[in-house]
Amino acid sequence: MSTTAEQSRADAPAGTESYVIGIDYGTLSGRAVVVRVSDGAELGSAVLDYPHAVMDTTLQATGAKLPPEWALQVPQDYVAVLKSAVPAALASAGIDPARVIGIGTDFTACTMVPVITDGTPLNELPEYADRPHAYVKLWKHHSAQPQADRINDLATSRDESWLPRYGGLISSEWEFAKGLQLLEEDPELYERMDHWVEAADWIVWQLTGRYVRNACTAGYKGILQDGEYPSEEFLGALNPAFSRFALDKVTHEIGQLGASAGTLTAEAAAWTGLPEGIHVSVGNVDAHVTAPAARAVNPGQMVAIMGTSTCHVMNSDRLAEVPGMCGVVDGGIVSGLYGYEAGQSGVGDIFAWYVNNQVPERYFAAAEAAGLSVHQYLTELIKDQPVGGHGLIALDWHSGNRSVLVDHELSGLVLGTTLTTRPEEVYRALLEATAFGARTIVETFNASGVPVTEFIVAGGLLKNAFLMQTYSDILRMPISTIDSEQGPALGSAIHAAVAAGAYPDVRAAGEAMGKLNQNVYTPDAESATAYDQLFAEYSLLHDYFGRGANDVMHRLKGLKRDAGAAA
Amino acid sequence: MSTTAEQSRADAPAGTESYVIGIDYGTLSGRAVVVRVSDGAELGSAVLDYPHAVMDTTLQATGAKLPPEWALQVPQDYVAVLKSAVPAALASAGIDPARVIGIGTDFTACTMVPVITDGTPLNELPEYADRPHAYVKLWKHHSAQPQADRINDLATSRDESWLPRYGGLISSEWEFAKGLQLLEEDPELYERMDHWVEAADWIVWQLTGRYVRNACTAGYKGILQDGEYPSEEFLGALNPAFSRFALDKVTHEIGQLGASAGTLTAEAAAWTGLPEGIHVSVGNVDAHVTAPAARAVNPGQMVAIMGTSTCHVMNSDRLAEVPGMCGVVDGGIVSGLYGYEAGQSGVGDIFAWYVNNQVPERYFAAAEAAGLSVHQYLTELIKDQPVGGHGLIALDWHSGNRSVLVDHELSGLVLGTTLTTRPEEVYRALLEATAFGARTIVETFNASGVPVTEFIVAGGLLKNAFLMQTYSDILRMPISTIDSEQGPALGSAIHAAVAAGAYPDVRAAGEAMGKLNQNVYTPDAESATAYDQLFAEYSLLHDYFGRGANDVMHRLKGLKRDAGAAA
Repeated sequence: MSTTAEQSRADAPAGTESYVIGIDYGTLSGRAVVVRVSDGAELGSAVLDYPHAVMDTTLQATGAKLPPEWALQVPQDYVAVLKSAVPAALASAGIDPARVIGIGTDFTACTMVPVITDGTPLNELPEYADRPHAYVKLWKHHSAQPQADRINDLATSRDESWLPRYGGLISSEWEFAKGLQLLEEDPELYERMDHWVEAADWIVWQLTGRYVRNACTAGYKGILQDGEYPSEEFLGALNPAFSRFALDKVTHEIGQLGASAGTLTAEAAAWTGLPEGIHVSVGNVDAHVTAPAARAVNPGQMVAIMGTSTCHVMNSDRLAEVPGMCGVVDGGIVSGLYGYEAGQSGVGDIFAWYVNNQVPERYFAAAEAAGLSVHQYLTELIKDQPVGGHGLIALDWHSGNRSVLVDHELSGLVLGTTLTTRPEEVYRALLEATAFGARTIVETFNASGVPVTEFIVAGGLLKNAFLMQTYSDILRMPISTIDSEQGPALGSAIHAAVAAGAYPDVRAAGEAMGKLNQNVYTPDAESATAYDQLFAEYSLLHDYFGRGANDVMHRLKGLKRDAGAAA
Repeated sequence: MSTTAEQSRADAPAGTESYVIGIDYGTLSGRAVVVRVSDGAELGSAVLDYPHAVMDTTLQATGAKLPPEWALQVPQDYVAVLKSAVPAALASAGIDPARVIGIGTDFTACTMVPVITDGTPLNELPEYADRPHAYVKLWKHHSAQPQADRINDLATSRDESWLPRYGGLISSEWEFAKGLQLLEEDPELYERMDHWVEAADWIVWQLTGRYVRNACTAGYKGILQDGEYPSEEFLGALNPAFSRFALDKVTHEIGQLGASAGTLTAEAAAWTGLPEGIHVSVGNVDAHVTAPAARAVNPGQMVAIMGTSTCHVMNSDRLAEVPGMCGVVDGGIVSGLYGYEAGQSGVGDIFAWYVNNQVPERYFAAAEAAGLSVHQYLTELIKDQPVGGHGLIALDWHSGNRSVLVDHELSGLVLGTTLTTRPEEVYRALLEATAFGARTIVETFNASGVPVTEFIVAGGLLKNAFLMQTYSDILRMPISTIDSEQGPALGSAIHAAVAAGAYPDVRAAGEAMGKLNQNVYTPDAESATAYDQLFAEYSLLHDYFGRGANDVMHRLKGLKRDAGAAA
């Protein structure tokens, strides 16, 4: 665990200030940040890496091999963050815990926990510890694609009214596909499960002792539209045993974003060192809480939270159907506006995979000698090459495509390699591919009547200035950046402040506590023109491999599954 | 330089035996082997790595950067092999040099030396040492593709009779495209050049003091068909200054394979330690000499010489037009049969590029700990994975495609990568891609009336048993292997023995001196069936990217050239 004390940027008498805690649950770690309510100053933080990280090849409890496209987590890792990162953040901030008035959380989504009535996850029942389906299905668990395909086929054939709200496709990452996979692959566990709970809500349950289902994930991931879930009839047509899934496993009291879900229990107060009884805001999603942290809650402001994956959120006063978006939810980001979401399921993950698996030792040695990370070193080597100089084009689908194709059977591609291609050239092609993916999303919104007027980046990747300039050139838009290294945690703290009553609503709290640097990067005209040619190539390959002309990626994943089953 | 003494396999009284020397000039080194005339026993050998290796990024004389797709060599490196490897091989064999009756050579092709009347290469004239076009253009110098395209377009439009003899396409690797590039990019040097000489003939010129043009490269690389080169009119239509190219720079006395080109000069005898006056066989090509070394001189026996690239040679009693073959030449391999050639311009080169540029340190460390080469270690890790288990498909065009597309503007592709793809999986996909490329060639011959009845492998890659089994499975054919680790050198020695009069012809010498292990690998039915599915995917991508449906690879190389020019 690492902690950081940060300099206070406003100087009010300590006795008059109050504070909130924001906790951001990411893919690999949880981060707690202590934030001053008056101005959003971040006073201290601490991070805990999840002890079990992501289980994507083997189940740690048994050592058993997991099938391809699985990704599991252990719920107690999330509680460990409460027990260690929160006290450490408080200590590093040097404030009096008694002055903390609220706590807010955000989570990856759709990340699902199967629990019994009291909230105990199935994997904590000793008889189920060896069953993969008893564990948390992390957002990037992609093996429910066959179930997602059936949901989409049936919804299309029945012309279900909710389907266009999700760009025409329900993702294998979401509640229904993952729930159907659980039913069909481990019916005993499905039967034993009382609630199929978003991790975003499960952690709030641990803090408050109450289960409240947040409106954000219920809408984006749980297909709750205009107060209704998919019908019993629809679900029964997928599988008769699935007909009451929404009624029995999913339906629950909904909490609005920024509202209080309840107050901190004595037990959770003891874990965290915070006062019992303070308000805990309704659960939320990492990307969505970041919008107010970047003061980006007006129509047309697209916030891209760029980390292992990228999530794009944008408000609009219009309800539109954007092909391949993740979803549109009334009040899904802030109340009173339609919240749109889109995403790229692999971004930083792809760069990390490449560095860990395809970069030779001499680069690591040279990076160390130069005092740089390997990512920084590769970037330094290649950043001055003229656009197109590597002769490469890549597709950024190593973790599938969330928008606009919504297809996790797609996979990565690098084209154009020669015997003189250098590792840093492939690295740059991968960076560019993610920018082309972002442009595809922006252009789709623009063409659907909800134009993107501003592009704001938050998340860990904003520190790569070359990557940001590349995005600016490829998008042909200025790039603004959040002025915080812990945007989601700050956003959670903003929601905590609202839940505690310090501000009337999330918009007002964001105005006071959020932080944005506008137009930090602007497009270089010459690069932008050159990138237009590469983007045309990307689009051609995107449509050829992504829209059915050549389904080779689907077929290869099928062969891989068959081979895995035969092995 | 390394030398090897090899055990004699026949025991004749030393006083009655005679010997020949075979010298194989490869891409990176020259190898001399001492061979017993009576039975082909290889008694000693030595290898010299060329001091200048391949210049493909910078010209060593000046440090100047070379454009993309260039590959140059230094002629004196070839002479260095005569001076060091030949005496070392003699010493390691422990025979009396006085009993050596002949010397034979083979070379990479088409590798071209620009020389003045006496055979001095232009780069050895001090005023030209800084001019890239003064150096040897190695076979894999691929930057004459624009010239090759113009040759092909014009020949197609004029329906030139020689074009079908080359599968419908003249390669950028060959004499005319490279010569036209030289004219157009450095006309002063073109003017100064008296002969445009195959390195295969230049080395014989150094040995004998005589320039004899071998029938093999004159036919396969020099477009000599039925005694005629492309017409003055045709060449003038490409470029008026090129009209007399064939007449002035290329036309010369032709020597037949296995004939004597002359006798060893006093100077060359001093270099090599061999007797002055012994016969030197006409120059030849590495792949073509290997056929008799593998006893594969009958119709339908395809010999694949698998090293950095693969060359396929096969005899037939029929003259057929095989789309995308490299060429058919009457007596091009042995007299009395039509010799066919095809090729894959990158094979071992691709594996080496991958290992050098895309494999992380932990693999090198583990390989060393296991006492294996990295290639062996990667193979061990992946060899038991069921076919299709990696979910990948690759195109083996990192060095372009020689057959059957004849297009060096094509480039490599890896498709299907995910965040759990392992380096050894990509390695295997590249191995498989080269086997799919080989199957494409075999199927094209089969469909053109000159069926492949036997597949015989020679060259360095035959030592990878997994690769060989993969080829057997993918080709659905037994694989026979040459029983020599230095097939080309043995083949050159066989030609030397014929030139010296020890045998009546190459066929007879091959029967006595050649070595073959038949059907060492046979197809596994289950793997073969599974590979059929992957081959179908390969073929789909092969045709999509290689036959004009999406010329993205051409466009990317164009952008790369533009970017390089702008930088």
